[in-house]
This record gives sequence, structure tokens and C-alpha cells, in this order.
Amino acid sequence: MSAHPRLSLNQATIKYASLAEALDVTAAAGYGAIGVWREPVADVGLDRAVELVAASGLRVSTLCRGGFFTAEPGPERQRALDDNRRAVEETAALAAAGAPGSRPVLVLVAGGLPQGSRDLVGARLRAQEAVAELAPFAAEAGVTLAIEPMNPIYAADRGVVSTLGQALDVAEQCGPEVGVVVDTFHVWWDPQVAAEVARAGASGRIATYQVCDWITPLPADSLLARGYPGDGHVDFAHLTRLVTDAGYDGDIEVEIFNQQVWDTPYPEVADRVARAFDAEVAPAL
Amino acid sequence: MSAHPRLSLNQATIKYASLAEALDVTAAAGYGAIGVWREPVADVGLDRAVELVAASGLRVSTLCRGGFFTAEPGPERQRALDDNRRAVEETAALAAAGAPGSRPVLVLVAGGLPQGSRDLVGARLRAQEAVAELAPFAAEAGVTLAIEPMNPIYAADRGVVSTLGQALDVAEQCGPEVGVVVDTFHVWWDPQVAAEVARAGASGRIATYQVCDWITPLPADSLLARGYPGDGHVDFAHLTRLVTDAGYDGDIEVEIFNQQVWDTPYPEVADRVARAFDAEVAPAL
Repeated sequence: MSAHPRLSLNQATIKYASLAEALDVTAAAGYGAIGVWREPVADVGLDRAVELVAASGLRVSTLCRGGFFTAEPGPERQRALDDNRRAVEETAALAAAGAPGSRPVLVLVAGGLPQGSRDLVGARLRAQEAVAELAPFAAEAGVTLAIEPMNPIYAADRGVVSTLGQALDVAEQCGPEVGVVVDTFHVWWDPQVAAEVARAGASGRIATYQVCDWITPLPADSLLARGYPGDGHVDFAHLTRLVTDAGYDGDIEVEIFNQQVWDTPYPEVADRVARAFDAEVAPAL
Repeated sequence: MSAHPRLSLNQATIKYASLAEALDVTAAAGYGAIGVWREPVADVGLDRAVELVAASGLRVSTLCRGGFFTAEPGPERQRALDDNRRAVEETAALAAAGAPGSRPVLVLVAGGLPQGSRDLVGARLRAQEAVAELAPFAAEAGVTLAIEPMNPIYAADRGVVSTLGQALDVAEQCGPEVGVVVDTFHVWWDPQVAAEVARAGASGRIATYQVCDWITPLPADSLLARGYPGDGHVDFAHLTRLVTDAGYDGDIEVEIFNQQVWDTPYPEVADRVARAFDAEVAPAL
């Protein structure tokens, strides 16, 4: 079997797989790259994870994910910053272990409003300050911080960075090495998406491109409202051309949070993802 | 009983009430104004609705709603435009029947992607063309068209106008009398909300201000993810100050789509809305 040379399987798409299983399934399906999550890395420990990645022959396209740093100054915020520094180190180690072309990119999700708070402006400011504090440490480690704007559906409880334009504003405040994630699920609706993708490309800040579809009706758990490319409403040809025209030529991850997908045997998922990518994304590359 | 002089009960908050019931409940709860929906008006006919509104002594703050005009050129689009012209006439008639200070404002929801289409750019363009076509007719009737940007959660299936900035872009293309709706549920997450509310105010385009809360976890039907002010994550003081600073001094509607609210006796809802408004919105006026 083979998959498109730029296709990467984000591990969240086969959420219940261990790191070893995920690497095996991804390699066996003919992919060249994988997007790794921290939890399965932690399950085996970083040293073992590095060995497994090196043995897989796969590129590492990103590590998901750091962030969640909207807390007020205090112990919780300090813990978040410390944890993000560890995530930076993990990113560097895993990318170094991956096949040539691996990308030391750490995806950052800002986090939601602190419990009981409605101060969205303040939470956003604290997220920006956290990125600014981490940026020199990441640059030293050769790691790109990639701020992921999240669909506004998650603004309260998961990610207070809501648009690509906002993510770019933060990145520009925080340093030349800070980038952004362009994820179709999160940005497809944005009237400014064409201008902001071009802006991100012009400053070399597209750190990764992730694809999955927006499906309706939304499932009861809206976090899982994602589908294989082609199953929903996203115009992948349009968005992929924007990203390509903006100069991004790296790996493209398929990342699908969806209970039905998670309940499907991993090799079936890997195969289905590769076919959906070929049909919906590849023609626009 | 009395309610804040600027408070208006949007009829969708007591969805199952007939027009007569809604007017009675709203007046009995001491409100000065009501936001009327077209369906209960149609149930009794426009002539009877005009009589009922006139007898109620209430101001009419808006008529909800027109729009749903993203179809490709053809009979469906023509039907939508014809229906919107009727909605303009209804708006003028009901506002004329209402107490002094009634506002001839027709709320417009753009509609979603046509069945099977992923061409969001095209749907948005057609929505703009429809507003442009209706604008002279509305101006002639003395009716303000109020484009309602909808939370991006509805971009696929309900409203392709997703941000206040986008709604203002459309309004500015369509004429000086075209306005926008500022609805906290739809705009609270927007990083540009302060700038765009100010922009809307500067050009006199804030046609109405609607308030309800964003609650989490989202219910299974995400259309109903709205709560009484104070029950969720929206910073009403912040947003209300923005709208006030932008010069808006008209009625403020509370519009809540929520099954539990709909299942509550209407007078209880009217009372609860008035108290929530006093606690969350009024202090910022």
C-alpha cells in the first residue's frame, strides 16, 4: 500500500492506539509521516518513544500538543509553563529521531476561560504572554511553536484563540520562529481565511496544515464533530490551494476527532484517510 | 411588575406562545417592547396581528426574520426574494401599529450552504446580492434591513454571514440604510468585536442589540445552546459597554433558543428574563 507523499496520519485519528501500534499502522499503510500526541509518548516514556520513532522510518510532522495556559498568574500557570517546556524538549527529541524531513513543530492550544471567568480579553492576553515566555526557550531548542486557532465553538472551554488572524497577531508579537496551524475544521468558515493564509505564508508562519471535515448535524459531543475529508461541508480544494499558494510545502496531517472513527480498526482508518486525502486534498496540491 | 425600559422580549424566547399570548405576557410583565416573529404573525394574518400589536401598547423592536437567500439563481431564489419583500411590508405595518418608538427593523439571516454545495464563497456572494436587491425596496418602505452575523457553528447549515465585520462589509456594499444585528451569542467570541462594534456604530448601522448567553457543554441540538444572561460565559458588561459606547440607544432584545426555557410557563420566563437583564445588562447601560 502507499499513501500520498505529503500525507501524515495524526495520531488522534486512531486515538486508542499505543505509540507502537500507531507507528506500525501508519508505516504499514504506506504513509511517510505521523503526527504524534504526547499522551501515548508519556505512556512509554520519552526514551522508548524516541527508539520506536527511529525504528519506524517515519517522519514526525508535529507533536500535539502544548498550551492550555490561560490561568491567572500562580501555581497553575507555572505548572502549565513548565509542562510546555517539557513538551518543547519532547518535540525536539522526537523530530530528531524521525526520518529526514521531520519537523520540530509543537502544536499549541490556548485553553479556555478559567473556571467561572468571563474575561475572554484577559484570557487571550495571558495566552499571548505564555507564548512570548516560551518562544526563546523553543527557539533555543530549534522547535517551532505552532499556535492553533480553534473554531469559535470552543472559545469558552478549549481555545480562546479563535481565528487565524488572531493567532498571527500573537505569533508576530512573540517572535520570528512562532508559527500557526492552519486546520480546515477550525478556519473553513472564516471570511478572512484567504487573506490570513496569505499573510501567514508571507511571513513563513504556516507551521503545519491539518485537514478534516465539518459535518452536520453536529454530534451531541461537539468536540467530535469532525469527519473524513469529503464527508462534510469543507471546500478542501479551495483551502488547499490557498495554503499551497502561500508557499507551504510540508506534511499535511489528517486529524479526525470522531467516535465512530475511533471505534474502527486502525488499518481501516489509515486506508480510508489515505483515500479521502487522494480524493479531496491531493488534486489541489 | 416592571422591567427595564430598554428591555424587549424576543418572541422566540417563548416560542410556543401565540402572538396574542406573547403580547399579553410581555405587557403583563411590565415590558415596553417585544421582538415579533413572522410565524405567529402568519398564524393570525397580518391585519389581525396589526390590531393585536396596536392594542397591546407595546413597542415593536424588530421583526424576525427574513433572509435565507443563498440559493443559486432560479425559482427557489426568486421565492426567497418575494418572501423577503413581504417580510419588509410586514415589518413596516407592525412597527406602525406598535407604540411610539417602535423600530421598523427586519432581521435577516443569510441561510446556509445550498444542499450538497461546499462553495461558501459563492453562497456569501449570493447573500450579499440578495441584500443589495432588497435594499431599495426596504428603503422605500422605511424599513431597516438588519444583517445578523451568526456564530460560525451555523456557517454550514444556517447562516453564511459569520462575523460582524463581514456583515458590515455586506451592509456597506448595499446602501446607507442597511444595518447589522449585534447578538452576544453570535459575536462574543470574536477577537475583532470591539473594533467592529465601534465601526458599526460610527456608520449608524447597529440596527438592534440582542442578548443571550453561550452555555457549555453545548446541548445535543447546538441550535439550542443559549441561556439566560448570566448562565454562561458571555461578558455582558463588556459587550454592552461596547454597544453603548458605539451610540446604540434603542431596545435590547433577549432572545433565547433553549428547550428548557421553551418548556417553562411564559410568565415565569418573562420574569426570569427581566431579572437576568437587570443583573447582567442594565448595570452597563
